[in-house]
Amino acid sequence: MKRFFYKSLLQSQLILGLWLFSAGLSLAQQATWIWYPGDFEIWLGNKMQNRRTERGVFFPPFWKLDSHYNLIDFHKSFTLNAPEEVSIFVEGQYNVKIDGKAITGYPKKITMPAGKHKLSLKVFCQDRVPAIFIQGKNVVSDNSWLVTFEDKEWIDETGKASDQSGTTWLNAGSWNFNTPAQAPSKFSLATKTQKPVKVETLKEGMIIDFGKETFGFVQLKGLKGIGKVEIFYGESKEEALDTEHCETLDQLTINQDIAKDSTMELTKAFRYIFIKKSPAVSFKEVSMLYEYMPEKERGSFRCSDEQINQIYDVAKYTFQLNTREFFIDGIKRDRWIWSGDAYQSYLMNYYSFFDSPAVTRTLLALRGKDPVTSHINTIMDYTFYWFLGIYDYYLYTGDKTFIQQFYPRMQTLMEYCLSRRNKDGMMEGLSGDWVFIDWAEGLSKKGAVSFEQLLLTRSLETMTLCANIADDTKGATRYKQIGEELKAKFFNTYWNENKHAFVHSQVDGKQTDNVTRYSNMFAIFFNYLDDAKKQGIKNHVLLNDNIQKITTPYMRFYELEALCALGEQKFVLDEMKSYWGGMLKLGATSFWEEYNPAKSGAEHYAMYGRPFGKSLCHAWGASPIYLLGKYYLGVKPTSPAYEQYEITPELGGLAWMEGSVPTPKGDVKLYCSKESIKITGTNDGVGKLKFKSQTTPTCAQGSIQSVGNQWYELSIPKGQTIEVKYQQ
Amino acid sequence: MKRFFYKSLLQSQLILGLWLFSAGLSLAQQATWIWYPGDFEIWLGNKMQNRRTERGVFFPPFWKLDSHYNLIDFHKSFTLNAPEEVSIFVEGQYNVKIDGKAITGYPKKITMPAGKHKLSLKVFCQDRVPAIFIQGKNVVSDNSWLVTFEDKEWIDETGKASDQSGTTWLNAGSWNFNTPAQAPSKFSLATKTQKPVKVETLKEGMIIDFGKETFGFVQLKGLKGIGKVEIFYGESKEEALDTEHCETLDQLTINQDIAKDSTMELTKAFRYIFIKKSPAVSFKEVSMLYEYMPEKERGSFRCSDEQINQIYDVAKYTFQLNTREFFIDGIKRDRWIWSGDAYQSYLMNYYSFFDSPAVTRTLLALRGKDPVTSHINTIMDYTFYWFLGIYDYYLYTGDKTFIQQFYPRMQTLMEYCLSRRNKDGMMEGLSGDWVFIDWAEGLSKKGAVSFEQLLLTRSLETMTLCANIADDTKGATRYKQIGEELKAKFFNTYWNENKHAFVHSQVDGKQTDNVTRYSNMFAIFFNYLDDAKKQGIKNHVLLNDNIQKITTPYMRFYELEALCALGEQKFVLDEMKSYWGGMLKLGATSFWEEYNPAKSGAEHYAMYGRPFGKSLCHAWGASPIYLLGKYYLGVKPTSPAYEQYEITPELGGLAWMEGSVPTPKGDVKLYCSKESIKITGTNDGVGKLKFKSQTTPTCAQGSIQSVGNQWYELSIPKGQTIEVKYQQ
Repeated sequence: MKRFFYKSLLQSQLILGLWLFSAGLSLAQQATWIWYPGDFEIWLGNKMQNRRTERGVFFPPFWKLDSHYNLIDFHKSFTLNAPEEVSIFVEGQYNVKIDGKAITGYPKKITMPAGKHKLSLKVFCQDRVPAIFIQGKNVVSDNSWLVTFEDKEWIDETGKASDQSGTTWLNAGSWNFNTPAQAPSKFSLATKTQKPVKVETLKEGMIIDFGKETFGFVQLKGLKGIGKVEIFYGESKEEALDTEHCETLDQLTINQDIAKDSTMELTKAFRYIFIKKSPAVSFKEVSMLYEYMPEKERGSFRCSDEQINQIYDVAKYTFQLNTREFFIDGIKRDRWIWSGDAYQSYLMNYYSFFDSPAVTRTLLALRGKDPVTSHINTIMDYTFYWFLGIYDYYLYTGDKTFIQQFYPRMQTLMEYCLSRRNKDGMMEGLSGDWVFIDWAEGLSKKGAVSFEQLLLTRSLETMTLCANIADDTKGATRYKQIGEELKAKFFNTYWNENKHAFVHSQVDGKQTDNVTRYSNMFAIFFNYLDDAKKQGIKNHVLLNDNIQKITTPYMRFYELEALCALGEQKFVLDEMKSYWGGMLKLGATSFWEEYNPAKSGAEHYAMYGRPFGKSLCHAWGASPIYLLGKYYLGVKPTSPAYEQYEITPELGGLAWMEGSVPTPKGDVKLYCSKESIKITGTNDGVGKLKFKSQTTPTCAQGSIQSVGNQWYELSIPKGQTIEVKYQQ
Repeated sequence: MKRFFYKSLLQSQLILGLWLFSAGLSLAQQATWIWYPGDFEIWLGNKMQNRRTERGVFFPPFWKLDSHYNLIDFHKSFTLNAPEEVSIFVEGQYNVKIDGKAITGYPKKITMPAGKHKLSLKVFCQDRVPAIFIQGKNVVSDNSWLVTFEDKEWIDETGKASDQSGTTWLNAGSWNFNTPAQAPSKFSLATKTQKPVKVETLKEGMIIDFGKETFGFVQLKGLKGIGKVEIFYGESKEEALDTEHCETLDQLTINQDIAKDSTMELTKAFRYIFIKKSPAVSFKEVSMLYEYMPEKERGSFRCSDEQINQIYDVAKYTFQLNTREFFIDGIKRDRWIWSGDAYQSYLMNYYSFFDSPAVTRTLLALRGKDPVTSHINTIMDYTFYWFLGIYDYYLYTGDKTFIQQFYPRMQTLMEYCLSRRNKDGMMEGLSGDWVFIDWAEGLSKKGAVSFEQLLLTRSLETMTLCANIADDTKGATRYKQIGEELKAKFFNTYWNENKHAFVHSQVDGKQTDNVTRYSNMFAIFFNYLDDAKKQGIKNHVLLNDNIQKITTPYMRFYELEALCALGEQKFVLDEMKSYWGGMLKLGATSFWEEYNPAKSGAEHYAMYGRPFGKSLCHAWGASPIYLLGKYYLGVKPTSPAYEQYEITPELGGLAWMEGSVPTPKGDVKLYCSKESIKITGTNDGVGKLKFKSQTTPTCAQGSIQSVGNQWYELSIPKGQTIEVKYQQ
């Protein structure tokens, strides 16, 4: 039943609407389930991240998981013209007070009197998140309610309540649980049935092909008999058939005379399944319930190159599969929330679904609670990506409330980092710190690695921004100063003029000789460099085959972003075609965790010392979504929430391209060929088109300004479509 | 069913024993349920503290409640001569690994191979505490297992596990859950049936008297019919009959043809219940299930004064009623764990049950988890009592492991305090801090109150002690220094030579004129004073009727302790007889939260602005247990765990007294009259008798030394009985 949640929600909303209508009421305000902000996210994260199994073995994360606050006070004051009846739905044990006076028992309906009155609920719940849904005509639960996990409302011996509470109240958290039935603890993703495209009977069992990578619950229809059924899952056919080494499996013991439909308890990722069974067991049909997060496809891209279109589509599908309760790393394993992986998903999301709650859910689940006892996911760089994710989130959405509410958690995480600097003020891997950077053979993690200092610098810039938004001027000054000092130190310590590059690390106070791509490419799109350094890095690092090559789509993301930022869209397009195209040629129906063109056959599936350890559907494989949106369509915000934005289309060798980019103020639509650019701007926000033309461009709907060197600019009228004739 | 837990445990232990016997196995090692230390305590604390209701309204605490860690790694290495079968019981979702290699599924039995091997379990559980019970012959779960909430066991891309984990491992927590059936989440107290002593039918309903204060589940036997039943509880008859104002009640809706026994869902505290019902409802009998923590009565006291004997018995009963899952404040309300109340219970416990797990359970539940966001129970003094409780716990039990495991939680709590000092280095009530001290009319909490500085000084001494035990020499030095500075400041700031007293407070940098008893009496038994100051305080404060009188047994505890420490046992005996005896004369069957002899009739029951707000069974009312054991029998440890102890009997005007005092090394037994002292020492530990005699004393079993001024000393031979003839 729970799998049809979205549908039944729709029905109950309809029923509620009809009820309100038939009761002759004027339309009530929209109520929604609310909770302590960040707590549902942590609770749901625990649930999801503890669903991983490896060959039937429960496989939970290896970092600390936090819990929701179990005792929450909710309140809001309302001013009513007339008394109104209010329905109360609660997850947990609770009391209800009007103006501090409790109502006996666990009331489900109360009457709020006319005038100004305060409604409070206090809820205890250990296994789920304390949550409430309040529905009156005007008295409704939403995120304007205030919440705390310690109200400190003591009384003295005369019964007088304390008047110096010092309690911190936050705005309640909410999502889209807009009916009483839709309690937060009942959340589940949507599902729909998928049928196999091919069923083949082998000597040992049946091999079933669902046609492409997919995710969900396998179903055996009409299952009966006595004996065992074993299901071996494979992202590749080889994996499903290798019963000894496939990464996931189900083992069922059957004892039933009457045929029953059986749905596996846990979701799995697969394209193929191999089924072995006892002779005395039979079933009629195999299908699956595809499980997914319903997302609106707002971003789009089409162009003259069919391979690029295919790459875009497979990237989008890969991204959809990994956009679930949270942005996860991969659907086969780990199905955990990894901050570095998620950071890329945030960026892809801004050019596809623009699902902001998915970003904040993921940020909050990753951050968890104080005290900070390790880096996020235990990985130093992943802590820094968390900060970077906030920087971008604010830039793309302009959501100040999120920053104000969670600024204290940013502070404590940053203090954790700062307290772990070495005597030179640099971050080194201490005991318990995983310095990850990338999966790359022989990559040194010793000493103070330049890449980590660079990410910390950027994180400190984020903290400066957030401190200002949270009105912490002292903090802003402090973070700014530490950040600037560190940036200077980064240049002084790691820049090697002879190599035209930042070196990889400093060990025992000495610059190492090693140059890797990481710091060099990030420094470019962080825009920390002058032109000479940029060109130096481009020629001596990025385009230099003697520098160790990157084999993960994860770091190819940034490598190609850096090249795009340097205007190398044509080169990058070829790289995309060869790298992502290379996976497609090998039959990929979703993009992989790692791809090394030098390998062949089933070698591609191995990782972590296991023949099928590699994930063939990894979120970080989907970066073309982002690259094509930001650096080809060329749409990006230049101030928070797209108040101001820029469009710099770059065909990169394509004959034409078209697409849309979502913003909080509507979608930007764009068509671009070598002769014309057509743009529909957002209804709000100030957009500017930047382009290069060999001839003098024209536009009937606006006045084009030349800014020199064949570059032109044009303001985009709000909500209107303009067309520019030009010559590339 | 669950209420007969202890009994069924006994049975299952018996069955297990028989099974082991009949299976022909040699006796296996004792296994016990284990968990992350401190977590069961927090979880159980949440459960208990959220059971309070007030007139049918759920009434949870107003401070932050923490949760257990939900994902725990347990492991231990075993060296076996032969393979052995091991049974596994788990609360939560889990995996099992031998030497890091996982066993498929959720195994209930495994075989541990011969040789040295590591057994690990990882358990996730959100609603209960992750816990395991492992039973082999040698492979058993106990608190020698190591546990963590973050194992940080990542692998690299080749599958190699991290070798620099930096994880903190603690010893597992355990209690007495020694059979598989006895899972921690199933814990409940013991119960037994009690019958009323009198049932009276009034016009409006029935009034039922259980003869004395009691606690448990009311039962209606043979309940049937259609209608309502209302039960009004009273610690006094007046309360039960006052249906509008009694503090607790039950309201049942009945609709059943066939008579059924009905047990109320929640426990209540009462002596009387008043039952009203619809005419169409009937029941045959009213009884109750008395709910209690089974405790062994190790401490005892009897003397020549029957009123004192009665005071001792009622105190013991009061203490038993309030010794439950934890040491609570009172059984009617709040049934919460209050640090200041609990601190007195710890001390009473050392002279009665010597239930050390009850002390650590209470300390751990009070402390909760980091981050510290308020004082314990929001009360500044209650934070300090928490430290004092640890000081005494170590002195009485010598339990170093507890201190080593929880030292980090002591540190963070102390840092919270130190960070809240004012510019003079003193503690003042900041926003959100409740400065309690005592329930006393007009007591000023403004500025830096002397009492709080005194308690902080003592807390810093505790931290110095604990830092040394935890091998934190830097911390020890720091706490010692801050403590000594604060002690000096305390004397300089508050001592008023003219008043021969510490004044109450300093406001805006100036000593106030007000003298209260609190700091003065504590400074005495902290032994911070020279003789002149002691006598000054005795005469100008303690025995001075112009200084505001104390009306709570809570502070009378310390007032009388101070007087005992000054040798005023005779005076104190009279005070006990008049104060506690006063309550007995008013019909008390347990001791009260507050007693003001000036009040009369039902006035005694009012508090907090409510006619029956006062608790008539409050743990802090039971202090005679402690005073009689420590200052009359005169037994106390002079080094941790009674390695060395002292017996200084003081008859205080009694003709004779006898009793026993529990220690970790057995009980000390004592008889004392004006002519002889008979003592049986502990089997271990060095005891010393100190007494005063008008004549030269004699002892056949030891050699008495004169230490001047009619005082004598005598070493007590281990485990032997000595008798001294002397003349008081």
